[in-house]
Amino acid sequence: MEMETVAPNRTIGGNSRERLLDRFRRVRKTTEWICEPLATEDTIIQTSVECSPTKWQLAHVTWFFETFVLLQHSKGYRAFHSKYNYLFNSYYNTIGDRTPRDLRGLISRPRLQDVWDYRVHVEQAMEQFLKDVSENIFQAVEPIVTLGINHEQQHQELMVTDVKTVLAMNPLRPIYRAREIISQPVCDLHWIGFNEGLYEFGNPPPFQGGGQGVIDFYFDNEGPRHRQYLHKFALAHRLITNGEFKEFIADGGYRNPVLWLSEGFSKGVEQEWNAPKYWERVDGNWCAMTLQGFRPIEDSEPVTHISHFEADAYATWAGVRLPTEFEWELAAKGIPIDGNFLDDGNFHPVSHTLICDPNEESQTKVCATQMFGDAWEWTRSAYLPYPGFTVVGGALGEYNGKFMSNQMVLRGGSCVTPQDHIRATYRNFFPSDARWQFSGIRLAKDL
Amino acid sequence: MEMETVAPNRTIGGNSRERLLDRFRRVRKTTEWICEPLATEDTIIQTSVECSPTKWQLAHVTWFFETFVLLQHSKGYRAFHSKYNYLFNSYYNTIGDRTPRDLRGLISRPRLQDVWDYRVHVEQAMEQFLKDVSENIFQAVEPIVTLGINHEQQHQELMVTDVKTVLAMNPLRPIYRAREIISQPVCDLHWIGFNEGLYEFGNPPPFQGGGQGVIDFYFDNEGPRHRQYLHKFALAHRLITNGEFKEFIADGGYRNPVLWLSEGFSKGVEQEWNAPKYWERVDGNWCAMTLQGFRPIEDSEPVTHISHFEADAYATWAGVRLPTEFEWELAAKGIPIDGNFLDDGNFHPVSHTLICDPNEESQTKVCATQMFGDAWEWTRSAYLPYPGFTVVGGALGEYNGKFMSNQMVLRGGSCVTPQDHIRATYRNFFPSDARWQFSGIRLAKDL
Amino acid sequence: MEMETVAPNRTIGGNSRERLLDRFRRVRKTTEWICEPLATEDTIIQTSVECSPTKWQLAHVTWFFETFVLLQHSKGYRAFHSKYNYLFNSYYNTIGDRTPRDLRGLISRPRLQDVWDYRVHVEQAMEQFLKDVSENIFQAVEPIVTLGINHEQQHQELMVTDVKTVLAMNPLRPIYRAREIISQPVCDLHWIGFNEGLYEFGNPPPFQGGGQGVIDFYFDNEGPRHRQYLHKFALAHRLITNGEFKEFIADGGYRNPVLWLSEGFSKGVEQEWNAPKYWERVDGNWCAMTLQGFRPIEDSEPVTHISHFEADAYATWAGVRLPTEFEWELAAKGIPIDGNFLDDGNFHPVSHTLICDPNEESQTKVCATQMFGDAWEWTRSAYLPYPGFTVVGGALGEYNGKFMSNQMVLRGGSCVTPQDHIRATYRNFFPSDARWQFSGIRLAKDL
Amino acid sequence: MEMETVAPNRTIGGNSRERLLDRFRRVRKTTEWICEPLATEDTIIQTSVECSPTKWQLAHVTWFFETFVLLQHSKGYRAFHSKYNYLFNSYYNTIGDRTPRDLRGLISRPRLQDVWDYRVHVEQAMEQFLKDVSENIFQAVEPIVTLGINHEQQHQELMVTDVKTVLAMNPLRPIYRAREIISQPVCDLHWIGFNEGLYEFGNPPPFQGGGQGVIDFYFDNEGPRHRQYLHKFALAHRLITNGEFKEFIADGGYRNPVLWLSEGFSKGVEQEWNAPKYWERVDGNWCAMTLQGFRPIEDSEPVTHISHFEADAYATWAGVRLPTEFEWELAAKGIPIDGNFLDDGNFHPVSHTLICDPNEESQTKVCATQMFGDAWEWTRSAYLPYPGFTVVGGALGEYNGKFMSNQMVLRGGSCVTPQDHIRATYRNFFPSDARWQFSGIRLAKDL
Repeated sequence: MEMETVAPNRTIGGNSRERLLDRFRRVRKTTEWICEPLATEDTIIQTSVECSPTKWQLAHVTWFFETFVLLQHSKGYRAFHSKYNYLFNSYYNTIGDRTPRDLRGLISRPRLQDVWDYRVHVEQAMEQFLKDVSENIFQAVEPIVTLGINHEQQHQELMVTDVKTVLAMNPLRPIYRAREIISQPVCDLHWIGFNEGLYEFGNPPPFQGGGQGVIDFYFDNEGPRHRQYLHKFALAHRLITNGEFKEFIADGGYRNPVLWLSEGFSKGVEQEWNAPKYWERVDGNWCAMTLQGFRPIEDSEPVTHISHFEADAYATWAGVRLPTEFEWELAAKGIPIDGNFLDDGNFHPVSHTLICDPNEESQTKVCATQMFGDAWEWTRSAYLPYPGFTVVGGALGEYNGKFMSNQMVLRGGSCVTPQDHIRATYRNFFPSDARWQFSGIRLAKDL
Repeated sequence: MEMETVAPNRTIGGNSRERLLDRFRRVRKTTEWICEPLATEDTIIQTSVECSPTKWQLAHVTWFFETFVLLQHSKGYRAFHSKYNYLFNSYYNTIGDRTPRDLRGLISRPRLQDVWDYRVHVEQAMEQFLKDVSENIFQAVEPIVTLGINHEQQHQELMVTDVKTVLAMNPLRPIYRAREIISQPVCDLHWIGFNEGLYEFGNPPPFQGGGQGVIDFYFDNEGPRHRQYLHKFALAHRLITNGEFKEFIADGGYRNPVLWLSEGFSKGVEQEWNAPKYWERVDGNWCAMTLQGFRPIEDSEPVTHISHFEADAYATWAGVRLPTEFEWELAAKGIPIDGNFLDDGNFHPVSHTLICDPNEESQTKVCATQMFGDAWEWTRSAYLPYPGFTVVGGALGEYNGKFMSNQMVLRGGSCVTPQDHIRATYRNFFPSDARWQFSGIRLAKDL
Repeated sequence: MEMETVAPNRTIGGNSRERLLDRFRRVRKTTEWICEPLATEDTIIQTSVECSPTKWQLAHVTWFFETFVLLQHSKGYRAFHSKYNYLFNSYYNTIGDRTPRDLRGLISRPRLQDVWDYRVHVEQAMEQFLKDVSENIFQAVEPIVTLGINHEQQHQELMVTDVKTVLAMNPLRPIYRAREIISQPVCDLHWIGFNEGLYEFGNPPPFQGGGQGVIDFYFDNEGPRHRQYLHKFALAHRLITNGEFKEFIADGGYRNPVLWLSEGFSKGVEQEWNAPKYWERVDGNWCAMTLQGFRPIEDSEPVTHISHFEADAYATWAGVRLPTEFEWELAAKGIPIDGNFLDDGNFHPVSHTLICDPNEESQTKVCATQMFGDAWEWTRSAYLPYPGFTVVGGALGEYNGKFMSNQMVLRGGSCVTPQDHIRATYRNFFPSDARWQFSGIRLAKDL
Repeated sequence: MEMETVAPNRTIGGNSRERLLDRFRRVRKTTEWICEPLATEDTIIQTSVECSPTKWQLAHVTWFFETFVLLQHSKGYRAFHSKYNYLFNSYYNTIGDRTPRDLRGLISRPRLQDVWDYRVHVEQAMEQFLKDVSENIFQAVEPIVTLGINHEQQHQELMVTDVKTVLAMNPLRPIYRAREIISQPVCDLHWIGFNEGLYEFGNPPPFQGGGQGVIDFYFDNEGPRHRQYLHKFALAHRLITNGEFKEFIADGGYRNPVLWLSEGFSKGVEQEWNAPKYWERVDGNWCAMTLQGFRPIEDSEPVTHISHFEADAYATWAGVRLPTEFEWELAAKGIPIDGNFLDDGNFHPVSHTLICDPNEESQTKVCATQMFGDAWEWTRSAYLPYPGFTVVGGALGEYNGKFMSNQMVLRGGSCVTPQDHIRATYRNFFPSDARWQFSGIRLAKDL
């Protein structure tokens, strides 16, 4: 299957049911496309407690629709299997007990085929339900279905990054999808300046009455819209490259505690970090497993698979710092959501040539490249509630708020984020030591 | 496939090549029969570092023949895959590096089908080699092939006990093979007395010149044949039943430290033992996962899935003790190898009615039942070298000797041991806290 | 020794050398006063990696002066002992290798008496040095000596909280210092409102040329002075009491995951939290070890020894939230630094009667009580650098900045903070699960 | 105090009360002598769960007499402190709850001085009781007092080996007791042959009626006396020296898995063994902490502080094996209990010159040197019950039997064993990886 056939082009026309159904179908198809190259064996394995087997995720995204839409709103719908709620609930305490997270890789049954059958069953029930249901109920479930679609998109990214850990640790070095990636030269780092001032960030509260449609969705943690005062700063016009990161390595960056947050240095010693995740020395040259197989590190590509600790140490080494999430959002506002996404099928960050002319009189943020796609950009902002944030009641209130501790915000999406899932206000978050996501570095500095 | 078709009846006639090939084929077929009911998903999972995935074991038993026979003795044979030695070497340091044992469940590739292809490939090469090879070389490899056959039989038992851990932890309670097991009433425990004296145990050293054939095989740890002095003792005529073990539980046996070896009691507290492995209370009744599915505990069946610590505590509670391995072997000598084995397809210990008349004037060891099959019998003997034991050189010397520390000897085979694999001198061994094997209790006492 | 004799009254007159020496002497004496009731045995023990033995801390605060003042600035001074740098360096990578933190409780030598000898030696050398040194060098070392004094004050608090863990786990329930604490009734919680607006926070950069004296000291992490925009909010006029916290417990607060940050609930389950640290049920009543011995929980006293997770869960249960550090600082500005401190010798939070009249027309922040002393107040702010913050070079740059990850800010000081050590801009920080400090809850809410 | 004054010369004359009291006093004095050089700080620390602080052991040996003699037999005696039973019970479940073993080093109170007061109090009560008690009761308590004396002697050895772990890890390298040890050259290894045959081992059951006196004591695990058949073997005439062990190291012994028990090699990799415990490379030479301080390894001294795994690997490397405990006992019978013991005050194994003439026609076991003292000799025998062994009822039944799992037998005593505590039938036992005892190697081989 070619990715083109499932490319999630934005639907504009049509009524809201059609639009929702269309989006639902396209997102579901993308999930199938992601699973296509995987052997059954690949889909069972959990390499660490943070990662989940593809089979589990596949069932879980279907469980979401079954649990929050069909079982609660579709009269007469009965659960496909009485134990699936226990098996495929991720963390919703309100919904009940569940398989301990670290045991997800020890669950051989249901078989992968059973999970596909479950998927088809729920999908058909969803289609029928969305067509038949009264307008009243539709308006109530539309935001939930939209949430379910976005939830599935989040898992699309995780399916790819999680299965990469499975393939990458395999001595046979299996290829997920072969694809030649052409490298382009990158130019030197330029800085884009921003003035101090009081700015607005985040999104207004979602409409409760159905106005929040497929296109306008955002997560609760992106709001409320509120003010922040920013001091003068500058942002790098592109991501840091592998070539630049190699200099940090060569300069002993991994062994110099003065560059590091104390906790990060300890973690690095404990886990024997001496390069980004997946990098290996072969005959003196850095290589790495990618989803196209094992290959040499390409200097011009953005560095990826680094923790917040490594990003912070690199910035310290470079004499600057990481941006706050608000600095990043200020810069990203108005920039078209363009770049290297899941839809492009590269499954890897690519190099970009500078698109703005550094000799122009005033540099503006239109110069900024790679703001979206390629690699999530670590910020120096802890993942905390915005002023005025409140958790909604019920199970769906367990979605974002309860994770607001000891994680850092990342912005901008990556090469395995669906293009229509990302936006300037989107807040991703991971612990400071997480390395298995496509995460990278954009520098900032005070002016 | 019916088990009957692969029942390993002992071949008597024929020359030694034919006999060896015949045995090779039958054992290989039994492995296939064991794997038949398993889904691909079942074969990938490693529930603990002690257990191995079926897929790994399947590859490993083939690797054994490829490595120790074909690659060393079959001119021109080339390895099926250059990485398989790294992937499927278990613990032979002499053979080289290998996948860390605790990561066996994280290896998705080769696929299960690839492992079957590997199996066929090596099997065909073995057949051809054994037919074509000169008599000279045949005599050299016959003991190695015989070892490989016995090695595969050991893994047949482990495949079943290991995959039981996978199925048993699954909330869907999958059935391996459905089979109704008829319970028979058991009679009271009788004691069979033995006189003190100097006895011979173990086996003579194997012939080096080819005389050691398929039938006469035994492991190096069963020899040399040597003398032990035994004091007067008596042995219980049958295994302890679930019903008897329930009395120990009901009497607070698991909570009374005075009954336990100190290390065993700590282990039990730490791992929350309150019944044999797999037992669960359902509405006040004990039930357990078996390979026939979840069902109530049958009182008349032998208790199984207990550690040495539990067996020892039970014996102490009963006012007696476990036998030494020599006491057991003395009693077992001359008793026909009959009972409930892998070949019977029960995959579970069964109840037996007493076959001797307790009113007869002198009880003799012919009264002893269940000495072979049903459940491995924990002895109070540590697994140590016999007097005069020496490790053979080379990789095959790593087979048994290096495990002679902190393990206890078990005797007699179980319901998943192949019938033609067990004998009176056979020494199995596991750590004192191992519970996932079909292990049970036979009592002994001083006279 | 009476605490009164060492009470750190602020010296106003005198020149800066005299002021510094006076402050140095008084702080050193307070340390001695803290150690007075301890047996040698109490000073050796490390109950967890976070805590340090009193003996170690006693040596470490002296090492600080020896290392950063005497060895670097006092010509001819030689280290008291060549190994003490290895033994008593805490975490300064720039200064060299050191005893692993988790082994501090395994170091029997030097004896406690040796550490006292070390203390006297360095103290005398410091006195002499500060008297004799040229004005030039004095101006250079004054900020370092001031830092050392503040550093020792931080350890005064830690000596008390760390040794409390030693005494509290002892079955003999030893008393640190007997003292009767009189409880006063507390009034209902009132809210003090604050307007939205752009405010300035933190401190200006310290003068490099000696102007930064004893009185005006603050840590690098309190600056630079910068702007933050705050939205409308209200702050509770006092700390939450034990009585109020008991309602949370009685309402099942510890068992209701919906109230908790996900990580906090897991931590609570893992560590079996069901009440604040040190609380024990005795005949149905809550009691706790205090530094005055084991006694019933007094309802009117502020709740203490709770983690950030518990504080956050309590606030969620109460339908409100914790304040940000900026909200707290805004409220604290201008309030006199008055309250229950180390100097008072209570070693425990005490109850306070409301000092403002809730019926007054406009409540103002002068109503706020307990802002300083009693218990550190958890904020919802992660411990991160202020805009424009930079780490200073050299070893002293390792003081604060490198800990800016995965910790939360606490404000206001506690019952074991020296009174002249705390101020409105002071930022304390601990991990979200830390419970052994005197930490408590002040609520905030959006308006 | 000079060791000579407390040297435990065997008392022959006198009645049994006087003999018992005399022995009691002398053993108690030896304990004091052991503690003499220790600082209070040294006595608090627990370096690992296997070791106990000196202070704890000091209290525990007194607790033994208080609990099993005074509280049970001395009318009117009341416990010195109600909590000491909880604090100083080691592992007697029958006696009640106790401080978890791994927390013994976190108990600062009672102070060391309180423990000395406890000691004096119980000692005086014991003296009075043993003088005043009726002959009837005396006969009942004499075996218990004798057990208590032997128990204290066991702890004398442990106090020394445990506090050595405290001193040895201290960067200040403290000296326990200075003493110059003169090295003597050792001659080559000779083998002493023994014939096969049926032999008797162990001791007859103790007399119940008081006949078992001070001199004739032995532990329950040394009996019953029973028969074992031994095959022909030879025993090395002396212990393996440091010089010989260095050859094993130089030959890569620690890195060659073929020499090791599988579990031992893993343990060695995990714990980074590359030499005996305490050995350190200084400028290319091996040195080690001893109780006389840090000094070069003396080649002629017996190697010590090695695990069973290392002893076994060394024997394999040398092409021979370790003796069984019966082989050792056969050789030791009749040899005078002479050697380097605690009483000698060396606190370290010493070198010995051969005392027999290897040219003599028939070598006999009188040639065997170092059978007693210097270093415990690892055997290849697991610590298991002798035929006919039964645990006695009550708390004292918890003394030896419950530890009969996963430990190996050591024989002969060490340089810190009291001379009158050891005998040919004495069975010491430790886990295979224990290294902190003075344990060494005597080789054996089949003939």
